This record gives sequence, C-alpha cells and structure tokens, in this order.
Amino acid sequence: MKAMKNGRVTIPTDLDMIEETKEIIDQWGADAVRDCDGTEMPDQFKNYPVKVYSNYYTTRKDNNWANKNPDEVQQVYLMTDFYTAMDDQLKIPIMKDLYKEQLKPNTINDIKRWWEVINRTTGEVVPVEAWDYNKKSQEIILRNPKKYHSYTVSFLAFIIWDPVHMYNYITNDWEDVEHQMTYDVRQPKTKAYTLKKLKKWMVENPETDVVRFTTFFHQFTLIFNEQRKEKFVDWFGYSASVSPYILKQFEKEVGYKFRPEYIIDQGYHNSTFRVPSKEFRDFQDFQQREVAKLVKKFVDICHENNKEAMMFLGDHWIGTEPYGKYFKDIGLDAVVGSVGNGTTLRLISDISGVKYTEGRFLPYFFPDVFNKKGNPIKEAKENWVTARRAILRSPVDRIGYGGYLKLALEFPEFVDYIESVCNEFRILSENIDGKKPYSHFTVGILNAWGKLRSWGTHMVAHAINYKQTYSYNGILESLSGMPFDVKFISFDDISENSDILKDCSVIINVGDAYTAFSGGKNWLNPLITSAVREYVAEGGGFIGVGEPTAYQNQGRYFNLADVLGVDKEIGFSLSSNKYNWSENEHFILKDNSSELDFGEGKKNIYADLETKVLKTSGKDVQLAVNEFGKGKSVYISGLPYSLENSRILYRAIFWAAGKDNEIKKWYSKNYNLEVNYYPASNKYCVVNNTYVKQETIIYDGTGKSFDLIVEPNDILWFDEE
Amino acid sequence: MKAMKNGRVTIPTDLDMIEETKEIIDQWGADAVRDCDGTEMPDQFKNYPVKVYSNYYTTRKDNNWANKNPDEVQQVYLMTDFYTAMDDQLKIPIMKDLYKEQLKPNTINDIKRWWEVINRTTGEVVPVEAWDYNKKSQEIILRNPKKYHSYTVSFLAFIIWDPVHMYNYITNDWEDVEHQMTYDVRQPKTKAYTLKKLKKWMVENPETDVVRFTTFFHQFTLIFNEQRKEKFVDWFGYSASVSPYILKQFEKEVGYKFRPEYIIDQGYHNSTFRVPSKEFRDFQDFQQREVAKLVKKFVDICHENNKEAMMFLGDHWIGTEPYGKYFKDIGLDAVVGSVGNGTTLRLISDISGVKYTEGRFLPYFFPDVFNKKGNPIKEAKENWVTARRAILRSPVDRIGYGGYLKLALEFPEFVDYIESVCNEFRILSENIDGKKPYSHFTVGILNAWGKLRSWGTHMVAHAINYKQTYSYNGILESLSGMPFDVKFISFDDISENSDILKDCSVIINVGDAYTAFSGGKNWLNPLITSAVREYVAEGGGFIGVGEPTAYQNQGRYFNLADVLGVDKEIGFSLSSNKYNWSENEHFILKDNSSELDFGEGKKNIYADLETKVLKTSGKDVQLAVNEFGKGKSVYISGLPYSLENSRILYRAIFWAAGKDNEIKKWYSKNYNLEVNYYPASNKYCVVNNTYVKQETIIYDGTGKSFDLIVEPNDILWFDEE
Ligand SMILES: [Mg+2]
Ligand SMILES: [Mg+2]
Ligand SMILES: [Mg+2]
Repeated sequence: MKAMKNGRVTIPTDLDMIEETKEIIDQWGADAVRDCDGTEMPDQFKNYPVKVYSNYYTTRKDNNWANKNPDEVQQVYLMTDFYTAMDDQLKIPIMKDLYKEQLKPNTINDIKRWWEVINRTTGEVVPVEAWDYNKKSQEIILRNPKKYHSYTVSFLAFIIWDPVHMYNYITNDWEDVEHQMTYDVRQPKTKAYTLKKLKKWMVENPETDVVRFTTFFHQFTLIFNEQRKEKFVDWFGYSASVSPYILKQFEKEVGYKFRPEYIIDQGYHNSTFRVPSKEFRDFQDFQQREVAKLVKKFVDICHENNKEAMMFLGDHWIGTEPYGKYFKDIGLDAVVGSVGNGTTLRLISDISGVKYTEGRFLPYFFPDVFNKKGNPIKEAKENWVTARRAILRSPVDRIGYGGYLKLALEFPEFVDYIESVCNEFRILSENIDGKKPYSHFTVGILNAWGKLRSWGTHMVAHAINYKQTYSYNGILESLSGMPFDVKFISFDDISENSDILKDCSVIINVGDAYTAFSGGKNWLNPLITSAVREYVAEGGGFIGVGEPTAYQNQGRYFNLADVLGVDKEIGFSLSSNKYNWSENEHFILKDNSSELDFGEGKKNIYADLETKVLKTSGKDVQLAVNEFGKGKSVYISGLPYSLENSRILYRAIFWAAGKDNEIKKWYSKNYNLEVNYYPASNKYCVVNNTYVKQETIIYDGTGKSFDLIVEPNDILWFDEE
Repeated sequence: MKAMKNGRVTIPTDLDMIEETKEIIDQWGADAVRDCDGTEMPDQFKNYPVKVYSNYYTTRKDNNWANKNPDEVQQVYLMTDFYTAMDDQLKIPIMKDLYKEQLKPNTINDIKRWWEVINRTTGEVVPVEAWDYNKKSQEIILRNPKKYHSYTVSFLAFIIWDPVHMYNYITNDWEDVEHQMTYDVRQPKTKAYTLKKLKKWMVENPETDVVRFTTFFHQFTLIFNEQRKEKFVDWFGYSASVSPYILKQFEKEVGYKFRPEYIIDQGYHNSTFRVPSKEFRDFQDFQQREVAKLVKKFVDICHENNKEAMMFLGDHWIGTEPYGKYFKDIGLDAVVGSVGNGTTLRLISDISGVKYTEGRFLPYFFPDVFNKKGNPIKEAKENWVTARRAILRSPVDRIGYGGYLKLALEFPEFVDYIESVCNEFRILSENIDGKKPYSHFTVGILNAWGKLRSWGTHMVAHAINYKQTYSYNGILESLSGMPFDVKFISFDDISENSDILKDCSVIINVGDAYTAFSGGKNWLNPLITSAVREYVAEGGGFIGVGEPTAYQNQGRYFNLADVLGVDKEIGFSLSSNKYNWSENEHFILKDNSSELDFGEGKKNIYADLETKVLKTSGKDVQLAVNEFGKGKSVYISGLPYSLENSRILYRAIFWAAGKDNEIKKWYSKNYNLEVNYYPASNKYCVVNNTYVKQETIIYDGTGKSFDLIVEPNDILWFDEE
C-alpha cells in the first residue's frame, strides 16, 4: 500500500537545532515546524517548504505591561479552609497553604463587595460589618462569630505567576527566568493593548503561517500550595475567569447580583463534578459568549494578515469550549490539543467548525521523560496505540510533537519509532479519506453537562486518572474507539425535547451519586425519569455504571431502579431480605475470562428478584441485566479501560440495544483486535491493539469470517469484497 | 474458692422428661424449671423444690377466639414493591411475594381511609377516587396513573399465622400443628377476654411461681415470603402494632390525622436505621405508654395471685422497651432474654426497674443444632465466653436454657460442659455480689435513638450480623465487656441539655451516613454541632466510626470534619489535592500487630494536613487521630469484634479521653485477657477470653505488675492487696 511520503506532521524546533530540524523534517515527513514555551523559531525556516507555527501568548510574556497595570492582572476566586470559631474573635489567614509567589489577594477592588465570609454551619453570609481584613497579616478578623460555628472566606486574588509558566519552570528546573504574570485580556486597557500588540506582531512576523494561540484569556483553575505543589486543579474550572469589571457586566446582563458563592459553590469551586447551579450556568454562558466575541477579534486580525489562527485546547482555554454554543462563530482555522488517550483524541477530533484539528502526541520532549531513566519509546507506543483506536473512528487531521527537539535526538530508536508512527498515520488518513466510518448505531451519554463536555466527562486534570474516576473513564475510553456514533446528552436536552433519546439505541449514565455525571437532583425531575423510562419501555437500551440515576428519594437510591433491576442498600432497607445473588451466564460475557475487573466497583448493590445477576463479589452485585417493557438495561459497577473490559461494554451495548444477533459484523473474535469499516472507500482495517502477535477470526459486514494473524501493534487494510 | 452449689439456673422440661429433669436439676444446680413452645410442664414439679415458670402466650394459642373475632386479629402495615405505570391503568398485586398463609389484607376496615396509594416519583398521595381494590385478584387498580411514574400501595393486613409460631414450626419441621393466629390484646373485646382468661388461668395453675409472658401484645415486624422464607425483619419494628382502633385513639391524642406513611416511611417501614420522624416518635411514645398501662393490668393479676411476672424480651415485646419512659411503671418482677453475645447480654442485664434479669443462653435445644452434624458444645462455649465479658461488667441475675431437654441429653459432653458453666456463673455472681464493678470513666454513644436503644444499635434481627453492620456492632460488642460506664445519648438529649456530654470522657458516633446511628440530619443542627465541638474543645474525646457526623452540607460530608481531621471525598472535591497519606506510629496501636481488620472499612476517607494518619489502605484512610482545642478525636473506618480490635478501641478510648498515662491499671498486656475489679468486695479477676492457654503481665490498680499464665477459657479471682 502506497502512502503520501510526507505531510500531516508538526515538529518542534529551536535556534540551535536548525540542521537537525531539517533532518527530522525529512525522516518524519513533517510539513510544519513550531516553537514552544522556552524555545524560539529560527529565521532559517521562513523560506523552507514547511508551514511555520508561532506560539502566541495572549495573556503572558509581557511583565512590563502586567507591572504597569496591576489592576488588570488576571484574578481568581479562592476559598480558604474551614475555620471553627473557638473564641470571641476568629482570625482566618486567607493565604494559608497557598503559594505567595503565585497569588496575591486583590485589595484594589472593594473587598466588602467582592469577598464573602460565610458561616458554613448555617450557610449564612456574615454581614460585612462583622469582619475586617488585616492587609499586613493577610487575615480576616471576624468579630463575635457564633461560637463553634465553622467559617470560610471567599476572596479574589491576582495570579502573579502564570500557572502553566510556573509548571514548565518547575518541570524543567529553569533558573533565573522571570516569573510570567498573567493579565486579563477582557479588561479595557489590556484588551486595547493586546489587540494593538497582535497587529504589530503580524507586521513583525511575516514568516508565520499559523498563529498558535496558547491560549486566549482565562486559565483553567490551577493553584499551587506553599510547597509549589499542585493544590487545586480543574481543567474545566471558571474560577480564574473573574474580575469585578467582568462581574459587573454579568450582573447587568442577568439582572441579579453576583455572589462569590456562584463560583465557590461550598468550596468545591464549581468543579465539573458538581451539578451546575442556574447561576453558574448563566455565568458560563455569559463568559463563553463574551470570550468568543473577543477571540473573534484576534482571529480576524490573523486572517487580515493572511495567517491561520489555531487554538491550543488547554491552558487559557476557558470560555472557548469547542462544543459550546458560540465556538463556531469564532472562525478559527484549527484546534490543536494534547492527546493523552483515545478520549482526549476524540475531544479534539470531534470538534466541528474548524478547518482542521491537530493532536499533539506524547511524550512531550521534556527532561521528565527524556532522561537516562526514562523510556520515551514505551510512552510513545502506548500513547499511539491507545489513541489510534480513536483516530480510526474520528481522525485528527494532523499530528505533532512538542518540547525540546534536542532531547528527542538523544534517543535514536525513539526517532525511528516516531517515523513509523508518522507513516502509519498518513496511510490511515489516506484510507479513511475524510469520510465517515461505518457506525452500527448511536450511543448516548447522559449527564448534567451534555454536549458541552463531549469526551470531557470525569476529567479532573487532562487525561489524568483518579482513584474515583478511572472506573468511569473506562467507559468513555472504550467508546472512543468503538464503531458507534456517540452523542452527549444533557438533562436539559431531554427537558427541551425528549425525542433526542430516540436518536440513540443505547443511553449510558455513568458516575458517582449526586455528581454531575450521574446527574444528582435531575433524577428527581419526573419529566426526566418518565422520558428515560418511556425510551427504554419502547425498546431502548439503558446502561448504568457506578451509581446511575442515584438520589435517595421515596424508598429508592437509584431512581430508575425499576429499569436497572438493581438498587443500592444505603442502610435503610437492611430489614428487607435480598435473595438474588446467583450468577448467570450471559451473552455479554461470552468473550471474557471469569476474572473480571470492575475497578473500584461498588458495594451494597443488590438485585430485584426478576433481575439476572451476572457477577457478584460477595453480597455485592457488580454486573446485572434486566428487561423493562420492550427495552433492556445493564448495570455495571465500574469498568476501567482495558481491551477485555472494552469487549464487555461492546457486548453490553449490543445486548441493551436488542441487536445481539447483529454483533458479528465487522467483528474480531479476539477482543485484542478491532475492525473498522469505511463505506466511502470500501476499505476496512483490522488493528492489533496489543504489543504481541494475535490470532483471531474476523467477521466482515456480511457475517463471512476468516482466520487472521496480526503482528504486534499492526494495522492491516483490506478492500471490501 | 467455694461457691453456692445451686441456684440461679433455669432449665426446660417436658412431660416425658421427668426423671431426666430431676437429674439435670442436681447436676447443673438448677432452681427453676420451664416449659417452652411445643413442650408442657409435668405435674411432678408442682411440689418439687424448684420454681416453676410457665410460659404464657397473651396473643396466641387460642384460635377459637381468633376465629370468632376476625376483626381483632393483629394487623400489620405493609408496602408493596414499586410498580411503574406503563399504561392507562396500573394494577398492583398487593400480596405479591407475601406468604398468604401468614397475611390477609384487611378489607374489614375502610381501605380508603387506612390504605394509601403513593406516587413515589413525586411523593404525592393518589386521591382515593383514582383507585379501587379488587378483593378477588387482590389488586389495586389505579386509573389514569401518571405514565412512567412509580407507585406503591401501603395497606393493612391481618397476621393470620403468628410469625414466631411459624418460625418454630418451620425450624422444627412440625406437622399437623394448627397455625396459631395472633390476636390484638389492645382491642376491646380481646382485651376484656384475655384479662379474664388470665384470671382464670391463675386459678387453674396454682403451682406456677413465675408467669413467663411470651410476650405481650405486639410482635416485632417479621414477614415471610411466598417460599416461607423471611422477607422482612426489624426486631424493633412497630409495623405490626397497628389497627384502626388504636390509630383513632392516637389521632385523638396527637391532634393530627394519621397517615400509613408514618409507619411505611418510603418503604423502609421505619426501620431502626431511619432517623425517626416526629410523627413516628409520637406514635412510639403513644404505644409505649398505652402498652405499659395494659401490661400493668396483667402484671397486677399475677401479683394478686402471688405469682411473679416475667417478660420475655422478644417476640411480642414492641411497646415494652425496657429503656423507654414507661417501663418502670409496669412493675414487672423480671425480664428474660436470649443472649447472643456480650451486647445482647447487656441489653438484658442493664435493665433497671425489675427485681432480676435472666439470660437464656445458646444453643436453644432445637434440632437445628442438636443433630448428628451439629456441635452444641462449640456453640455453647462461644456463647458463654463471649457473653461472660459482659456479665463481668453487668451480670444478669440468672441464666437458663430452653428447648427440648431430651435433645440435649443425647450429648453427654454438652451436659457436662453446661454444668461447668453453671458453676462458674454462680462463683462469679457471688464474687461480684451485686456490686458495681470498677469503671475507669464513662463513654457515651451518640445517635438518634439514645437511651431507648441502649445496646440495641445497628441491630436488624436479634444478635445477627449483617454485612453492613458487623463493622459497627464491633464497637458495641467490645464495649459490652469493657471497664467503662456506657451511656446512650440522643441528639434530643443534647438539645435539652448539652451538659449530658460532660458526664462522658469520650463520645462515640458510629454508623453509615444518613442512618439513625450516625445521626443524619441532626448534624445540620448548629446546636448539636456546637455542643459537641465545645465538648471536645474543652477536653473531651470524640471517636467517629464509619461515616460519623455525615450529611453533605456546605462543603463538608462529615459535619465535624474539623474535629475528626478527616472527611470523605464524594466526588465534589477531587480537584483539591490530598497530601496526607503517611502512616504514623501511635499509642493506640502499641499492643497490636501490623495487620488490622477494619471489616467493611470505608473508601475515600482523606485526612487534613494536621491530622495524624495511623493506617491507610491505598488512598483510603482507615484510622487517624486529631486534636481539637484541648480535646482529641479518633477516626476508625470500621471495627468488627475481635479481641485484637477490642484492644484498639480500648486504647483509642483512653487516648481520646486524654488518659493515656492511666491505661496500665487493671490491665493485661496480652489483649486476649481482661481484668475486672470489684471495689465493694476488694476482688479482681483475670479472664482468658480464648480457647488456648495465655501468658500475660497483669497490672493492678496501683500499676504494680506480675506475670500470669491462664488456662484456656479460665477465670482467675484475686483479692486486692
Ligand atoms: Mg476531524
Ligand atoms: Mg436488606
Ligand atoms: Mg442487673
């Protein structure tokens, strides 16, 4: 099979890497070069036959401006720890455990308007007359607090060291590098200044083909503690998108008074796991619209100067959510993002409204991996093989790497491996040819966020697993490479028009009780429960993972316990004996061994009498199926990503959809391989997702089968007969 | 050491066991004989030098009466399963999965007044006009239900087979025995009849010394399913204490309308794990007072006939709670109860307001244990050694056995072992001599029930462990044999007068989130949290087990997270990094091995920075200590009963009380032995709680120590020097 010899690949370069860069351009077939944080673009590539990407930092790398305009440095809402009043006076040291070189309390604006002292025992706001702030000691002094009540302070702070710059600084052991401040482009002086500056930059950088914005205006929430360790991270957090200037505009628009609590939300900083309040949704919508409007001005300047505008999906990306309402109006040419796995690949590749997408693959050429103890090939291989599943479903248009090229060159085998990745990527891009792969049907993911958080569910920090999330992330990661269309649905979508469910053959609700991802109080809304029940009763499939539909109410913990056939014993119904504990054989487990991995799993799940239990651990149901009306449901306690688990989910989806008879189409008997079919080009591929040789039986679209052996990692292409 | 050769022991007899009974009287030193369910008292013991107990069944063994008065058969509130409306009409078969030979729907009283159809999706009661009951099909027919809403029916049923009689019938494989119905002594005709009958019985049974009531009027909730298996059991349940006759009186007294939901409580049947509603508390109080009043009439009749009145603590005991307000007014002579372990021993022995208490030890002489495969000695030994710890703290006045004597006699070694138990019991009774053992200080157990459920916390069925409770029961079981005074405190007690906390050196809050035992919404009451915080801040100790003080609120799951130094991650604060995972050595663990058993434990508990973590399993804190003001706290994720865990709790209590320097008083270095001191008699004992020989160092009250070897199970008595 012949393929393009070059194209679709971006590599990093640096001033002292000119010849080496040219060699890598040839070896990897790269057609674009880029600079990074800490490197610079050599002049030599201005007239070289590659595209030149230039990183553009909208909000930092200009301490001169930041220092002259301290009132327009970016701000963040923070909450102190909880302090219990033990006396007639309570002192709350607001900066305790926060890194003073990163954050500085904002005392420029009226603290009595923008800060909030809250009695967390009662939930009441403390009247501003009852407290003062001591600038010198950085303490709130609360007079006559209610004794033994617990208090917090919500306050605004300036971000005097950009958190990403700080992260890179620490990771690379930089020394003698000035801490970059981050200024707020949304504020009037800085807005005018940065727009003017970009226009000037255009003139000064005629060689740049692509302006790679890193990023726009508001950093996701990333806070460090006194030991310079990460203290708080929410990749979706809006806490650092605030300023009194903006908040007053927000107030005017929504017609009610802003409260810090809309951001702080009991100290959870409105993390993406909280079911969002109306006020927070209002604020997000306001920010997304206003950010999009202003980003468009930056993009327009690029276009006026015949340059493409590319957005990095990360860092200061808050408000530009590609799956939000206003993104398509911006007119960006491209989005580039870091690919940690299949899920994050889809986070990028599913974006519409841009001309192309680019995945920045791992490892980043930084000394944390490129050192004597590191194994960059292993990381690259895992990253590629994991992401490739998702590329085969929804390809990014380009791939790329970042960091210090000179570090990568010290690992020649790594360089060779990446060459093979680039070639493989070009072949599959050619074969897929921009057409839609065959999809069996549509699977819906139902949560409080819906489309806005497409492929971004259960994420705390980008592509990093948490003990509390990996068992749920596995569902999304599995889906990222499966031959289904995936639709992210919110409860609001159902409220607006429950027909949205009918587009899906299976609906999945996955997450811990009361979180945004299982849905929390949305399950108390009869409109929602009735819509989902009707959908299943009329033949739909429902898969619940973890604590689906949970919200303790009227004798139930899972509000759709009738659909699921299981509920969770939370201590109130111990008096009711539970009889149904025998494991049954089932279609879903036909391809799997008897040892199953439910990750964190769940305790105290029990099944109703008619439910078919498939797996228990002791008196805890881990996997069960049920029928409801004409439809079917599956309960899974958790499903970390693995090829074996992915197969369980695949079979569960087919069973829940009532299509168990149709599963042997474009199917590999061995779950370590997957088949994707591309009707537009009449091609299909078989991909070995493991690092060893695999034997299997492959079923084509007519059900015809043949034996096949596939080399480690390999991908084989076939023409449809 | 000499002891009484006889006394303090009750044995069962039967018509065909006369000579054998006499031999056992001699061998065991028994001074009382009794009949049981299924046996009869022979005339021969009328003039024998033993007390004669006669079982008296107030509510059953008179089907003639029950059949003639079907309207006064005892009733029970039941709730159906949840039924989802899929159509224009919803049929709910109310008797589904219920045993029709035990229960019969009450259609005598107005079902539209006493039954309730509830929309569980909305919590609304369905208007009675919208449904009808079909007697023949035993279905509720609900017209035009809200489609896809979930419904239940709460209804009244007659108990046409006494559940204990049924249990004995099934356990003993009885055949051709008429099912005994259970009639309601609280209702007018039956009340008059049973009082008259008791008077007659008095005349007919002059030989009886002790009327052993089994029991009075209302059976704890015990429901069987269609397979005659236990379906629902709540040893504290009031569901079977109802009838329209009683409920109308209740309504008159409280001045509001009764609703079935006050009993059903979302289908949890007000199980003892639910934080009780005001209405349910009202109902309990009403029942306890009215039951006590009527029991007194029965007791008075005994006294008028020179007989003692003894109550069996079980079966139809609802309303007679010995730790309730009205019990002491009844004037009972004695309470006898089944001893399953130390906790249930204390449930009996701590009762005040009676002349004496008696523990019925296990095994019951029934064929389920006394068969070729059974090991009655093993069961007896475990029962005795476990209960003895508690007897040494708070002795019952008598012990006894029940069942078929002839079954026991088939196991001669068993008969010899029981002889040794009887002798040992008499010696220790003599040494304790009715005086209060030495107590280091007072430990309080804080929950929603307080004194009413003294030693009865976390119990579903009497002395039976559940997966969800054994890790909490361990705390009570350990305490039952420890040299502390134990006080059961309710949140209402604190509301009335928070000084009650000051009586305790340590307060323990143990249970799952939202249950009556951790306390649920009581922890949202600032009066409660402030009182407990103040208590600890001023030097008190607080031990939280499981999910203490839990109720998600204002950024916290454990409302006293500040006191405990730990909280539970429920998914909302994943964005906040958790740093404190290193295990520390500590006083609490000094006597224990490194492998600890937290039972079910808890997941996702994390510690604040200043907290001292003692044990984790992965990223789950299992044991931690903290300081708060002048006081101390301990968090334990769970602590099933074992001698090793008992020692952990003992040391935790001393540490929390700030008395760690005083622990080596009346102390055994080896945790398999315990020391109890009796100041009134200047004696102390060392008890080996294991079945093997143990070596130890014993510390007396002055801290002086000596080496000691104790034979398996042995108890050694010493005079204080
Ligand atoms: Mg694309
Ligand atoms: Mg249960
Ligand atoms: Mg006593």
